[in-house]
Amino acid sequence: MRIGVLTSGGDCPGLNAVIRSVVHRGTDVHGDEILGLEDGFLGLLEGRARPVSHDDVTGLLTLGGTILGSARVKRDRIRWAVDNAQRLARELGIDALIAIGGEGTLTAAKLFSDAGLPVVAVPKTIDNDIDATDVTFGFDTAVHVATEAIDRLKTTAESHQRVMVVELMGRHTGWITLTAGVAGGAHGILIPEKPFDIEAVARMVEERFRRGKKFAIIAVAEGAQPMPGTLRFEHGQLDQYGHQTFGGIGNRLANELEDILGTEARPVILGHTQRGGIPTARDRVLATRFGWHAVEAVHKGAFGHFTALRGNEIQLVPLAEAVVRLKTVPPDRWAESEAVL
Amino acid sequence: MRIGVLTSGGDCPGLNAVIRSVVHRGTDVHGDEILGLEDGFLGLLEGRARPVSHDDVTGLLTLGGTILGSARVKRDRIRWAVDNAQRLARELGIDALIAIGGEGTLTAAKLFSDAGLPVVAVPKTIDNDIDATDVTFGFDTAVHVATEAIDRLKTTAESHQRVMVVELMGRHTGWITLTAGVAGGAHGILIPEKPFDIEAVARMVEERFRRGKKFAIIAVAEGAQPMPGTLRFEHGQLDQYGHQTFGGIGNRLANELEDILGTEARPVILGHTQRGGIPTARDRVLATRFGWHAVEAVHKGAFGHFTALRGNEIQLVPLAEAVVRLKTVPPDRWAESEAVL
Amino acid sequence: MRIGVLTSGGDCPGLNAVIRSVVHRGTDVHGDEILGLEDGFLGLLEGRARPVSHDDVTGLLTLGGTILGSARVKRDRIRWAVDNAQRLARELGIDALIAIGGEGTLTAAKLFSDAGLPVVAVPKTIDNDIDATDVTFGFDTAVHVATEAIDRLKTTAESHQRVMVVELMGRHTGWITLTAGVAGGAHGILIPEKPFDIEAVARMVEERFRRGKKFAIIAVAEGAQPMPGTLRFEHGQLDQYGHQTFGGIGNRLANELEDILGTEARPVILGHTQRGGIPTARDRVLATRFGWHAVEAVHKGAFGHFTALRGNEIQLVPLAEAVVRLKTVPPDRWAESEAVL
Amino acid sequence: MRIGVLTSGGDCPGLNAVIRSVVHRGTDVHGDEILGLEDGFLGLLEGRARPVSHDDVTGLLTLGGTILGSARVKRDRIRWAVDNAQRLARELGIDALIAIGGEGTLTAAKLFSDAGLPVVAVPKTIDNDIDATDVTFGFDTAVHVATEAIDRLKTTAESHQRVMVVELMGRHTGWITLTAGVAGGAHGILIPEKPFDIEAVARMVEERFRRGKKFAIIAVAEGAQPMPGTLRFEHGQLDQYGHQTFGGIGNRLANELEDILGTEARPVILGHTQRGGIPTARDRVLATRFGWHAVEAVHKGAFGHFTALRGNEIQLVPLAEAVVRLKTVPPDRWAESEAVL
Repeated sequence: MRIGVLTSGGDCPGLNAVIRSVVHRGTDVHGDEILGLEDGFLGLLEGRARPVSHDDVTGLLTLGGTILGSARVKRDRIRWAVDNAQRLARELGIDALIAIGGEGTLTAAKLFSDAGLPVVAVPKTIDNDIDATDVTFGFDTAVHVATEAIDRLKTTAESHQRVMVVELMGRHTGWITLTAGVAGGAHGILIPEKPFDIEAVARMVEERFRRGKKFAIIAVAEGAQPMPGTLRFEHGQLDQYGHQTFGGIGNRLANELEDILGTEARPVILGHTQRGGIPTARDRVLATRFGWHAVEAVHKGAFGHFTALRGNEIQLVPLAEAVVRLKTVPPDRWAESEAVL
Repeated sequence: MRIGVLTSGGDCPGLNAVIRSVVHRGTDVHGDEILGLEDGFLGLLEGRARPVSHDDVTGLLTLGGTILGSARVKRDRIRWAVDNAQRLARELGIDALIAIGGEGTLTAAKLFSDAGLPVVAVPKTIDNDIDATDVTFGFDTAVHVATEAIDRLKTTAESHQRVMVVELMGRHTGWITLTAGVAGGAHGILIPEKPFDIEAVARMVEERFRRGKKFAIIAVAEGAQPMPGTLRFEHGQLDQYGHQTFGGIGNRLANELEDILGTEARPVILGHTQRGGIPTARDRVLATRFGWHAVEAVHKGAFGHFTALRGNEIQLVPLAEAVVRLKTVPPDRWAESEAVL
Repeated sequence: MRIGVLTSGGDCPGLNAVIRSVVHRGTDVHGDEILGLEDGFLGLLEGRARPVSHDDVTGLLTLGGTILGSARVKRDRIRWAVDNAQRLARELGIDALIAIGGEGTLTAAKLFSDAGLPVVAVPKTIDNDIDATDVTFGFDTAVHVATEAIDRLKTTAESHQRVMVVELMGRHTGWITLTAGVAGGAHGILIPEKPFDIEAVARMVEERFRRGKKFAIIAVAEGAQPMPGTLRFEHGQLDQYGHQTFGGIGNRLANELEDILGTEARPVILGHTQRGGIPTARDRVLATRFGWHAVEAVHKGAFGHFTALRGNEIQLVPLAEAVVRLKTVPPDRWAESEAVL
Repeated sequence: MRIGVLTSGGDCPGLNAVIRSVVHRGTDVHGDEILGLEDGFLGLLEGRARPVSHDDVTGLLTLGGTILGSARVKRDRIRWAVDNAQRLARELGIDALIAIGGEGTLTAAKLFSDAGLPVVAVPKTIDNDIDATDVTFGFDTAVHVATEAIDRLKTTAESHQRVMVVELMGRHTGWITLTAGVAGGAHGILIPEKPFDIEAVARMVEERFRRGKKFAIIAVAEGAQPMPGTLRFEHGQLDQYGHQTFGGIGNRLANELEDILGTEARPVILGHTQRGGIPTARDRVLATRFGWHAVEAVHKGAFGHFTALRGNEIQLVPLAEAVVRLKTVPPDRWAESEAVL
């Protein structure tokens, strides 16, 4: 068969590992021809694609980013492409499409599938917020990077009291912050699912200092929100752009804590270091298995599904289930994390 | 309550993280007193134990090994201890016991539980061969170490053809070798579940060389077995002790391949580097959650159970289920790995 | 002999390795008694010290921070201590003092030495700004951490153009930023020794984008300064505290570039992750050798000197030479780095 | 100018970083054309070369191996090439040659230089055994890998006594073993420069056990030799090939110690993991600086020299000095390491 493959959405360690796996399984085992669509759905829209051979995927297991590129496409252009899905596929000469991407991509994949394009999707997000799968690749790598940072901060033992605020990725969900916070033993974990009381955080830190500890580490998700009206400073004072993604909350929280506690508070903003670089072994294996099963799904004609990890099994789940709801940190997981604060 | 905790069996990254979590949850939340039994069940037998406080577990998240020690105990001494379980517990003044260990420990835990000792167990094995849980802590770290080694070998690009044989842990199961082999992109993966044909391995390597590749990497589990009568050299030629655990198969395989192929073959024996050192973030979180739930199980009176990960949930499973059968690599997982050879 | 040892100044990976080495060499080889002064010179002032045995230093090779603590001491108290140096030493019962610290510590060490206290110093700074030694321990670790961050950023390949600004430590010198920038292949390297023209940086980035590159990475030292009057925004807009150490320049630079280029610019602020955690092998060896030679210097009576690395040799340098001038990045080194932009 | 570049000899992390640096400096700054000779001197002999552009070297900073390949060439063919050096250079159209390699390469480079070929050399060896430079790239990476392995072994804390033998690279010199042994805190360090007494090693281990330590780590260079007649077993018993490079001494030493001590002894053979993979930041910077200075040397006409690090300066040293003698571990360095055993 002639199988198109595309990657869509933001960076995620493991994307290239999926492409590699699709090529290995497709060409070596099924004798497929793999066509790489460039810049996500743009490649489908504009008929930009290139064959991807076994040699093309050498070394991709450890390479971050995506060799196929990825672009954001306006909704109306997607709608147009959906209306012309079968013709676009015919023009590219593909019998099926494997779409690798996040929630938006899965939603688009469903539209294309409903429009008669044979699509199998592979979920991708470092945020781990897709409900239908136990976990997504990229997440473990992000947690690994964040945990290493917290590890290093934990051994700073300067004699004067100090607070470290580590801002981690996660605009809508706190999975990275919760997991890295627990793995690193952060003393405070602030996530979007639970608006925080800045005074309560300050009191926790003071309590630690009273117990003779020299420092405290607060892990905060970029999307974590203070309870309304609890911050002392206007956002404007910090950043005239007001970017949440701009390391905003980490800097603001450090400012606030410094003001309340009268002790130094320093921010660490890991930013995109969490979504680049070499994937962890776990992410490489998950990505490789997803690619393998996506190819098998194509040959079984199981279109309109996406790959999901459940326990140790890879299952095929109807695309409809992908977009039911965002997987947020449930209260009981949050309760667990409090045990290690 | 007064809760005893012990670690038993071989090293496993994450043991200390469980102890830390038990102390945090038990003392901070329930006001328990945690008593650390020394050298596993020996501590129970000989009444050797010490209180473990919040300060005692500082820094344990990243520390390999176990601060409580671990010793092998002869079967008959275990039997004697089981017969005197309640008295021994009374003498130590513990209301419940949290036993952290591998298959043997879970088996012993069941005996003690049947004998009336309030026991909750936490499974531990880097081999990931316990069937009742999706995964055990320590496994991810072992895979991480093994994968890093394969990564480094993959970039050796000397002009003369060469075979690298990486021997990994796993006497009875191939989980570490399969997972690290897939994560690292090994060209051959040999595991105990599937006796290998040395000639077939050699032919695969020759095929790679024919395709112009400069080298091949074979990942082999220490317990992998060649098909009967397929090896050219007697074991005795290699090591008069005949230790399987002695890096035996890695060296032998390199010898054999060198002889068959007439090209250099070099072994890499990672040995205990796979079971020591800093646990990965994933292992720390799993170990921490297990400890948390073990304490909760004690307070719920859910004795005779052990903690297990299923999907994203920690569940309590009857000890009887722990020892039903060894979790080996199923043929379909093996089939997946062939896709990336 | 009875040798006192103290650590002074900010965190630096390798401090504990020096203490360990002093104890190993002193106790095992010379039969010395090592007395650890607490919180740097405060321990001398207040007579706070404890014996440090072979067992006390187990595991210190890989432990960040300092087990002896470190405190800032006001100048007048140092002056008072200098005036009473010999009495303080007598009260502690020490025959000699090994002082481990940065420029300030070496200056103080000289005062104490001139006042008749038998002192040998060990230089310490992650900034590598001490002129009399080729390098100081801690520096290699800071560069390692910073380089890993740049490595991860380099593989982010999102389709829309983006600038990453990585703020690194170095208030007065650019060694960490220059070295990590070269090691990581940063496209712009901004250091305190050379005020930067924000417009020139922006043009360089635009040139990269014109050549089809998807992103640019700017490594900037926390102490790097824009040429006067070249910034578009007031500092006050960013941070009412106006902390340079507050990740200030990284955020500001990202703001400015975003405004000039009209493309996303994101800051990464590594902060104290650069001065904590496990030292690199190189830093451990240098710290160990410094400790070894400091003890030998004491037994040779070579007081008033500090240990320095020159080529592969450890030499003893008069304390007077330590404080002649700050070692800044010379123009020819800067020229080299331009070659890799 | 048209500058040829070749890499010769075994793998060494940083080779690609030198090539990248030569291209960056040569093309971007001097407008040179860089011609990559394939498979070392074979490319010169057989006229196999290809242009290497700025795009060709993207990503090479972190890539192990060499994109130009490397081959061993028989002495007589080298002699023939030397006799025809100027003609071969003319046929390739190169004005100068930058040869990157080990001792053998520097020797060959001198012959070509004496024969009138404008050559500048860059020294390369993970063994760090070239006397004229403080250090060579590749060495720091090898030490990093070896030290991480020792770190992991050090936290194994099984209750029964055990010896770990870590075999490291170094057939003729012990720099890697000495440096990693000191950095990792190995309890025994055995190097080629100093034949070891197996009984003395055993006694040291027993002494450790007597002091209540659970384990001992012996770092041994592959080329370390026991004192004549001190081993209990014939080499033949271990490996009918008798490869020194075959992890021989590590396995043998473990066998011997197990037999003498009557306790488990396990080998770890890191093999080629030490010479592959991502270079450390230090090696990348050194390789980049060497490449930069090699290009400058070409444009200054400083032929017949090679780049060397002395202190923090890169100097040009006459090729004659490269091959005076092997840099072995001097007794005083050895004495230092004993302090930390």
